[in-house]
Amino acid sequence: MSRGMDRRGFLGVGGAALIATIGGRAVELRTPMDVAEADAASAAVKRPMSRRRSPRDAVDALTFGTPEPQPGGQVREHWIEAKSLSWDVAPTGWDALMNMPISGRRTFRAFAYRPWSDGFASPTGPATIPGPTIEAEVGDVVRMHLRNGDEHFGQAVTMHPHGLRYTPDYDGVYLGAYTRVGGFIAPGEEFTYTWEATPDSVGVWPYHDHGPNHALNMHRGLFGTIIVRERGARRPDVETALFLHELAPPVTRLRRSFECVNGRVAAGNTPTVRAKVGQDVAFHVQGADDMLHAFHVHGHRWQTPQGQFTDNQLLGPETLVTARWTEDNPGRWLYHCHVLAHMQAGMNGWYLVDP
Amino acid sequence: MSRGMDRRGFLGVGGAALIATIGGRAVELRTPMDVAEADAASAAVKRPMSRRRSPRDAVDALTFGTPEPQPGGQVREHWIEAKSLSWDVAPTGWDALMNMPISGRRTFRAFAYRPWSDGFASPTGPATIPGPTIEAEVGDVVRMHLRNGDEHFGQAVTMHPHGLRYTPDYDGVYLGAYTRVGGFIAPGEEFTYTWEATPDSVGVWPYHDHGPNHALNMHRGLFGTIIVRERGARRPDVETALFLHELAPPVTRLRRSFECVNGRVAAGNTPTVRAKVGQDVAFHVQGADDMLHAFHVHGHRWQTPQGQFTDNQLLGPETLVTARWTEDNPGRWLYHCHVLAHMQAGMNGWYLVDP
Amino acid sequence: MSRGMDRRGFLGVGGAALIATIGGRAVELRTPMDVAEADAASAAVKRPMSRRRSPRDAVDALTFGTPEPQPGGQVREHWIEAKSLSWDVAPTGWDALMNMPISGRRTFRAFAYRPWSDGFASPTGPATIPGPTIEAEVGDVVRMHLRNGDEHFGQAVTMHPHGLRYTPDYDGVYLGAYTRVGGFIAPGEEFTYTWEATPDSVGVWPYHDHGPNHALNMHRGLFGTIIVRERGARRPDVETALFLHELAPPVTRLRRSFECVNGRVAAGNTPTVRAKVGQDVAFHVQGADDMLHAFHVHGHRWQTPQGQFTDNQLLGPETLVTARWTEDNPGRWLYHCHVLAHMQAGMNGWYLVDP
Repeated sequence: MSRGMDRRGFLGVGGAALIATIGGRAVELRTPMDVAEADAASAAVKRPMSRRRSPRDAVDALTFGTPEPQPGGQVREHWIEAKSLSWDVAPTGWDALMNMPISGRRTFRAFAYRPWSDGFASPTGPATIPGPTIEAEVGDVVRMHLRNGDEHFGQAVTMHPHGLRYTPDYDGVYLGAYTRVGGFIAPGEEFTYTWEATPDSVGVWPYHDHGPNHALNMHRGLFGTIIVRERGARRPDVETALFLHELAPPVTRLRRSFECVNGRVAAGNTPTVRAKVGQDVAFHVQGADDMLHAFHVHGHRWQTPQGQFTDNQLLGPETLVTARWTEDNPGRWLYHCHVLAHMQAGMNGWYLVDP
Repeated sequence: MSRGMDRRGFLGVGGAALIATIGGRAVELRTPMDVAEADAASAAVKRPMSRRRSPRDAVDALTFGTPEPQPGGQVREHWIEAKSLSWDVAPTGWDALMNMPISGRRTFRAFAYRPWSDGFASPTGPATIPGPTIEAEVGDVVRMHLRNGDEHFGQAVTMHPHGLRYTPDYDGVYLGAYTRVGGFIAPGEEFTYTWEATPDSVGVWPYHDHGPNHALNMHRGLFGTIIVRERGARRPDVETALFLHELAPPVTRLRRSFECVNGRVAAGNTPTVRAKVGQDVAFHVQGADDMLHAFHVHGHRWQTPQGQFTDNQLLGPETLVTARWTEDNPGRWLYHCHVLAHMQAGMNGWYLVDP
Repeated sequence: MSRGMDRRGFLGVGGAALIATIGGRAVELRTPMDVAEADAASAAVKRPMSRRRSPRDAVDALTFGTPEPQPGGQVREHWIEAKSLSWDVAPTGWDALMNMPISGRRTFRAFAYRPWSDGFASPTGPATIPGPTIEAEVGDVVRMHLRNGDEHFGQAVTMHPHGLRYTPDYDGVYLGAYTRVGGFIAPGEEFTYTWEATPDSVGVWPYHDHGPNHALNMHRGLFGTIIVRERGARRPDVETALFLHELAPPVTRLRRSFECVNGRVAAGNTPTVRAKVGQDVAFHVQGADDMLHAFHVHGHRWQTPQGQFTDNQLLGPETLVTARWTEDNPGRWLYHCHVLAHMQAGMNGWYLVDP
């Protein structure tokens, strides 16, 4: 059988080659060497200043304040570091669904968000894929202290939130000569973003790097979940936030593509979700790569926002499916992406229901 | 022009390479030789017993009964055999849309569901892609007798339903060491599944193989349609269930990819649907491969569940689009996938409307 | 890094190879030579007459009238020519988002719709990607005079509308031996289509070529936007129609794939949209290639038709996302496709909001 990683490697099982446009060059990233060059180019990107070829507009002169919580709201403060680390895609070494070992190297250099205690006093856990979940209610303000603590890649990063409201200063996006202060956090630097949870922020969203090399760095793990609820809303009894995403050879330097849930591959390594009959259960599932996915849970059906019953919904890059039901069916169930090539390559996990 | 089937072959026009994780190996399936090896590995998979490396959980000890119909409901009994057969993707040899012959070999070894009379007394028709449609109303029970009658591939298969309610015993899924009785129907064996049509089962759904080699075997044709209606609901005057799916060279050993509707390629071979003005017409369209599709019908518009008018809707792996309208526009119309590469490679058909 | 355009070229960053079935051959289009041969085959397609192998049905004998506006409606008349032209994907030569030049050749032979004054008296502008926007209200009739004015490709073309109501004569589709009068407009010919805006036409839709070689020619730029409103409906203060689509090497003969918005690549070349606080702003975004896309606008959220808040929605071939809100957030914002490989390769643009 075909085992080699060739120049098609980056396609993995997906098919969308990454184009990097960094440091003045537009290239396809097909091999680890391509990726290493893109990283080097990215590490050489200077903090934007010149507007020579990018004419300044009136909107570029606007200044903005920093929002405060609405009456009754609160400040949700987070201290998070972007950090590279060694990440094992299958800590058990075992594929429980297919009843077989996962052979070969499984560890790669990931780039992920790590939680710290107040004032960056001490880390409260390791960096993880996805990063810490951010929760808020309408009227709250999220104050996000981001430190670029990476010592390996040497690149500027950011944190860009979906769903929350922000001014251009807190957009967390590299925009070339138009980059504002929150769009280029160089290694060793810190920045504090302030974001508002408004009535139209209710829902589940991703946050992620949006610096000069964010496409590659998102593939390495720089993403996480934001959950915004109505003020005082009851949270589900069981609530799980999952990302479906590929870890492909050019990024990981591993021999095969791993189709992941939250950075892990195959039931037993991916999150095992546990509930019991009668509970209010919610799966929030987002895409974190460039592919189409379909989220299926065995033994359960739920309603789409428009009222249809389903057990399998499409999602794509940074879009969301929420599957929520009152549990009534005990047993061991499989959840998985219904793209067969993804399921076969590990995009699956256990959902265990007690009577 | 490029005619050869190379190692990119399995990508067909799609782009998602199939990863098989069977018999202890994870491999990309790019050529017929890869597929033959995956089949051999799959045929060697033993009925799961050992739980050595997969620890038993309390949910694995649960036992379940077999449901009966609700008051007023009935038992819908089916006798179906999984069978390999020679399948012609274009019986007319002609592409009526492009006004040209379909040259080259068109027949491959498919794997499909075949209907039998009660008690497997005699077949009531050939195996087809898709298999027999299963219909039920809320409160009914579907009793599905599945026989693995294949003599070619030598692999365990199952039948896994979407939409209907089932206990883990009737899930019809291979789960490695956690496989229950309905998840591994070896060649020559029979099994009876019992599934319930509950209020949240209303809709149109797929059923399909979910055995150890289901990804390959679904690509060969082991899928069909389930339709569940409210009790006493009137069925549309014209109702058609279509699957959009690719038949790719590594699976078919043919020279090109065929982009199919119900296992056939090009108008005149794919289903020709016929209606007349005033009729209630419904197309239920599902995906049966790993790709994005868009279902378009010329000359007609319909409402999405959320009330927008459309004539072209996205679908993906095992997800559904229902296009339903009261007919008012006579003539010869084309339905097709709006992915241009799919339409060009045969994913289209005729819809004829009489005044 | 990998710079060469090899046989994988047509895949671009997408992954769906185009299959052309023209002039009796089904081939994969991977290189400019393949495309040249497909063009030659297409130029040799004769006006359909023979029905030898395509049996005539009763519906093929039906005759149809030409609709008039409903009471109070009007005729919306357009004179449009299909024309090949030299098209620059990045007129500024600069990628403002990545703060770098766009190196290499950027001009290719496009095929696009060009507006003329009444009676094809004189052109009112150049051919553009997309073509002129067609607007109507319910009850109106669109009278579209199409001229095939191309002198390069030598192929029949058509104009096929989505959303509007038409009889088979005005479907604008090549159907082999079943082609009606509007389905084959040879070079030098003109044809007048008449389409109705009915109550279920309300929305935003594409129009495009649907002649014998439409898949290739749509990739070259033969598409545009139709907007239908309720009678007397107020239009948004700011309304923009965008197409997300790839221009790939086999079609363009350029060295790389360009991921485009309206035929242009990278912020500063793609449409810059401008609004001010308080305005009713609408982006209508459609896909015009074979890929999955996700439309994201920084700093804004909107409601889906089913009432969920979002800032990032999936779209695909000829499907629509409308993002509409009352503007409340001044600054320079980025809109982009959230498929990272697409964003990196230019599928992005500026949205400027004045206080």
